[in-house]
Amino acid sequence: MRGEEVSALSERFVIIGGQAAGMSAASQAKRRAPKSEIVVFEAGTDISSLLCGLPYFLGGVVERIDDLTVVSRDEFTDKRRINVQIQHDVLSIDVKERRLRVLDKKNGEERIEPFDKLCIAAGAHPTIPEMAASGLDGVFHLRMPADAVRIRRYIKEHEPRTAVVVGAGYLGLELAENLALLGLTVTLVERLSEVMGNIGREIGQLVAQTLSRNGVGLRLDADIGAVDGTDRARCVRVAGGGDIDADLVVFATGIAPTSGLGLEAGLAMGASGSIRVDDRQRTSADGVFAAGDCCEARHLITGEPVYFPLGTTANKQGRVAGANAVGGDEIFHGVVGTQIVRVFGLEVARTGLTRAEAIKAGFSAMSKTIKANSRANYFPGGGEVFVKIVFDQTTGRILGAQIAGQEGVKGRIDVFVAAITAKMSVSEFADLDLAYAPPFSPVWDPVLIASNVAKRNVRGES
Amino acid sequence: MRGEEVSALSERFVIIGGQAAGMSAASQAKRRAPKSEIVVFEAGTDISSLLCGLPYFLGGVVERIDDLTVVSRDEFTDKRRINVQIQHDVLSIDVKERRLRVLDKKNGEERIEPFDKLCIAAGAHPTIPEMAASGLDGVFHLRMPADAVRIRRYIKEHEPRTAVVVGAGYLGLELAENLALLGLTVTLVERLSEVMGNIGREIGQLVAQTLSRNGVGLRLDADIGAVDGTDRARCVRVAGGGDIDADLVVFATGIAPTSGLGLEAGLAMGASGSIRVDDRQRTSADGVFAAGDCCEARHLITGEPVYFPLGTTANKQGRVAGANAVGGDEIFHGVVGTQIVRVFGLEVARTGLTRAEAIKAGFSAMSKTIKANSRANYFPGGGEVFVKIVFDQTTGRILGAQIAGQEGVKGRIDVFVAAITAKMSVSEFADLDLAYAPPFSPVWDPVLIASNVAKRNVRGES
Repeated sequence: MRGEEVSALSERFVIIGGQAAGMSAASQAKRRAPKSEIVVFEAGTDISSLLCGLPYFLGGVVERIDDLTVVSRDEFTDKRRINVQIQHDVLSIDVKERRLRVLDKKNGEERIEPFDKLCIAAGAHPTIPEMAASGLDGVFHLRMPADAVRIRRYIKEHEPRTAVVVGAGYLGLELAENLALLGLTVTLVERLSEVMGNIGREIGQLVAQTLSRNGVGLRLDADIGAVDGTDRARCVRVAGGGDIDADLVVFATGIAPTSGLGLEAGLAMGASGSIRVDDRQRTSADGVFAAGDCCEARHLITGEPVYFPLGTTANKQGRVAGANAVGGDEIFHGVVGTQIVRVFGLEVARTGLTRAEAIKAGFSAMSKTIKANSRANYFPGGGEVFVKIVFDQTTGRILGAQIAGQEGVKGRIDVFVAAITAKMSVSEFADLDLAYAPPFSPVWDPVLIASNVAKRNVRGES
Repeated sequence: MRGEEVSALSERFVIIGGQAAGMSAASQAKRRAPKSEIVVFEAGTDISSLLCGLPYFLGGVVERIDDLTVVSRDEFTDKRRINVQIQHDVLSIDVKERRLRVLDKKNGEERIEPFDKLCIAAGAHPTIPEMAASGLDGVFHLRMPADAVRIRRYIKEHEPRTAVVVGAGYLGLELAENLALLGLTVTLVERLSEVMGNIGREIGQLVAQTLSRNGVGLRLDADIGAVDGTDRARCVRVAGGGDIDADLVVFATGIAPTSGLGLEAGLAMGASGSIRVDDRQRTSADGVFAAGDCCEARHLITGEPVYFPLGTTANKQGRVAGANAVGGDEIFHGVVGTQIVRVFGLEVARTGLTRAEAIKAGFSAMSKTIKANSRANYFPGGGEVFVKIVFDQTTGRILGAQIAGQEGVKGRIDVFVAAITAKMSVSEFADLDLAYAPPFSPVWDPVLIASNVAKRNVRGES
């Protein structure tokens, strides 16, 4: 039976949060149950924003902030008949009485809003070290469109010449590139000894070289002590010495789930303080769903719940929550931990587990790194691709991959995503009938070369 | 136990054919059994050629024909200690007496060569319609390096202004582009009503438009009657009228397995007249293997043997044959029928079955075509991608995909290759944790959009 037919109900489905997960839930529910009443409460002024595009708005690659809104509020309200209330803070959830306490920030009035079904899609917030709260101007984080607008305005008004980006993860790298594009002298500062968490030594070095070639300073193993200045930021102090000039400081030190409402309402909590959900996006309370950056997901390799907030996952989870809230029976299978970034033309991606993570998860993990051309050697263009493959030495199962190169990295990591999801072994992978023509790859695609090398290191294989 | 240890034999392993499959078999066998004697008989003068690069040598994209040799004969002979005999025709195989009759074309002498293990890797030859044998100069096919050298010399000496390429498959498209690059006025003539076999109407039209925009004429449903001229080609006659000027004619009308030696030796024949092999590349005769374009492969969707000659498959099969000939136990899993071509910047690929093929194979097949941006909509560059997905309406199993666009087509078709190999359903596929960042794809990658549309059309899914 089709979801559309099941759900000719006219329940009230309330959604907390108007970004990717929330609006996906709203749209999916309305599509399946056109008669149901759907209300979205969003604390901010923006809805349905493409947050991943914000660094590119900063750098001027994306010109208008409005280009980063998928669907406008008018479209949602008028055309899709979804009631979107912006600047509405949900203060508390009463699961038993099935109602919310809501603050309309425009007039300061509180009211009670009932629900039949609820979806918490409150997202995540930046985790910023305490000393960032220096009271100085010119110290920012980047999470929402309003943050990006603020930073851009500051740059226009104060014309900073130097910038420090704190945190060399994916966002930090994109920020460093985009601020450099604006002509600022940028230093990327990272507490750990490698960029991008644990992407591996070879690929980490590639990234470092790429930054250096493009005039971006990189300081690893560097703890920020304080941001100094009078009124405005002027310098970042690094523990152990070596201060860095910084007219502008942007923190990209990670995010944490905005799960407080769920916690206070008595919902079970999951990985890294996010809201616990099952594979139907159901929380521990009947008829209450959660989706996106405020909740966990199942890792398809370990089977364990993880907190791995990403826009793609938020969209998928939102759809499932929205469908199930109006009587559907959809499943979100889970994640394998895929990430990709482009920094000054270098493409870097990872999926699955690193060797260290795999060992921690109980696998007899081994990794092999190979280097090969992205195209047939004789074909113009292209360049080197590094592929690191992580696999179980006993079973041959593929557990993860990290790839870097000038082109074709997304496609190659995505093959690993599919293979890891399907629990493929290096031996099966090595026979994959991947597309080949000289402009696209060598006869032996780099990922096949990597799996062949891995195959020889699986016990019992020759 | 490792293959290297098993096979400290010193048998004589003879290989017929010195291209991709043959030289892969030779190298793999030598690696595993360094003491074994390995002899390769190649009828031509070239070995280990990158045949897929030949169209690009014609067009001048690849400058030297030697760039299309993977490993030189000296390297094989001196360094790898593999005995490579070029210009040696194998005339017959005596499976029972374990010997070959061989003709040394350099001195016209015949001799008997014994073998313990044999691998037939005789490749394929172009299938050219009879009227191509017009006796006129300027009529060619392109299969081996010598063919490419001949065409290039003819172009240099006779400066043809017009060319007809017969056959609008992958090779025909590459030829049309490369001859156009040289400044010739090219017409591509195809007997069928679509380019590239049955790639589907939408994508077929994209290819036709691309050709037209780049000044290449396309004549579909056109049967070539004859090539006319005096001494040299001047015109191609088309059945039903509409002759085409052609100072140069190149036939790209497909290839057939060079399997005659196997047939005459009494080996079982398989798909399309190729040599029958099992998943260990064993023919019906004990100790006789076959690999590459002269033999069949198993189709991983239908389970049936198919003839699907490709360089990548030849390399994989060659390795397996070589390993098993010296005591290994390797398997070649099979193919899913992947192909890709780039024509004037348009990337076109297919894998698995078309809807028609799937229905013929007994599936309740349906197809859906979507169009989406290759990158985030707001991100500069990129363009439209067409994805056609073929799936079983009852089980949701993915059966095939055809993709065309300006970028990212290889990566996207390869995800389908992995998914089809793993027998994934559209529902599992729709949750794939594919890599996402604005420079690489929209939040919903085009392949995920296609699988979501397909999912709604699977019976029992909503």
